[in-house]
Amino acid sequence: MRMLFHFWLHPFSRKVRMALTEKNLSFDLTIEKTWERRTEFLAMNPAGDLPLLVEKNGTILSNSQVICEYLDEVYPEINLIGHDPVQRAETRRLVNWFDRKFNKEVTENLVDEKLMKAILNLGEPHGPSVRAGRANIHYHLDYIGFLIERRQWLAGDTFSLADISAAAQLSAVDYVGDVPWEQHHVAHQWYEKIKARTGYDFLVEERVPDFNPAVNHIQTVS
Amino acid sequence: MRMLFHFWLHPFSRKVRMALTEKNLSFDLTIEKTWERRTEFLAMNPAGDLPLLVEKNGTILSNSQVICEYLDEVYPEINLIGHDPVQRAETRRLVNWFDRKFNKEVTENLVDEKLMKAILNLGEPHGPSVRAGRANIHYHLDYIGFLIERRQWLAGDTFSLADISAAAQLSAVDYVGDVPWEQHHVAHQWYEKIKARTGYDFLVEERVPDFNPAVNHIQTVS
Repeated sequence: MRMLFHFWLHPFSRKVRMALTEKNLSFDLTIEKTWERRTEFLAMNPAGDLPLLVEKNGTILSNSQVICEYLDEVYPEINLIGHDPVQRAETRRLVNWFDRKFNKEVTENLVDEKLMKAILNLGEPHGPSVRAGRANIHYHLDYIGFLIERRQWLAGDTFSLADISAAAQLSAVDYVGDVPWEQHHVAHQWYEKIKARTGYDFLVEERVPDFNPAVNHIQTVS
Repeated sequence: MRMLFHFWLHPFSRKVRMALTEKNLSFDLTIEKTWERRTEFLAMNPAGDLPLLVEKNGTILSNSQVICEYLDEVYPEINLIGHDPVQRAETRRLVNWFDRKFNKEVTENLVDEKLMKAILNLGEPHGPSVRAGRANIHYHLDYIGFLIERRQWLAGDTFSLADISAAAQLSAVDYVGDVPWEQHHVAHQWYEKIKARTGYDFLVEERVPDFNPAVNHIQTVS
């Protein structure tokens, strides 16, 4: 069976998990604690990070975008990047926006500070970082709203890897309770549509041991 | 004419410049000072970063990897990523290694501290960052050596975007004099082969106004 090495809430692992789900590709999951730097894991991925996908034929793939490009090339029936080069560039531009810009400006400041520090016993969240993350997220939710008022999905009129990358980041921030959905209705409606897609229950239902989701995370389920 | 917005020494701008050169695609260059946040530039690239490529037909492309994927799709005669999905994944894995890991662990600590701080009048380089960058670079040069002892080029037996990404980062660090080539002969030989390719003179010859290259940068020219 295809195996995805991942970690709870990790947005880049979720991105690949969503892409596999969207393409109807079955897979098993293994939790990898990358800070333990297991020799067997480092042999598969010298960069030592997640996610890592091992295909049925033994092909080893690391880095969420590398994996998603591979999946779109090998399993093209359900296309997630686009058909012509300009559309593909627009999808990839937005994937990069959420993978890099949103991740750095929002997710690292909120999820890494509140959740990963707790898991790794690294002390309390850094106040200025949390405040920065909470301030920065509005700009990104506004940008989602701006795009969705002009298009059906983020990169155009079909669901794509751009929606997946954005939702993967937001779902992790939502778990720690820091997405001000009530102030961003268009973005909220877009996110509700994604959560409703087949197989995406884990975005809401996955639980981190000894770290409960914020109350408003659970509310958004209803 | 095709226009590339770039900045002196900026490794991601250099990456696209090398890819265009490799594909024999002509282009003009414009220096963009992104910190000035020009309205016209932000309208073309809301992320506000470099590089930005405007194609002859007006297509606007941002993010170095998005641009390079586009160029490989639209101008496939000279292929820079690879022909089969596994090879393409390996090229992209290494591109990501140098674009993200090397950039964060080495380039930001050395080029941003020494050069960009001087250009932006932000004070002296942060000593611990410079020391970290100088310590980290050995591991990356060792990895280049490890790969080149097994393959002709970084991602396999043909020159690829992986070589371009790595050389783009290293060329910027080389300008500030912090590549310990003398301790890494295999990596040095690989880099000399890249510098000798047609059209890559700018890797050594480009000069930043009011910021001379380190003496050992000039020595590696001969």
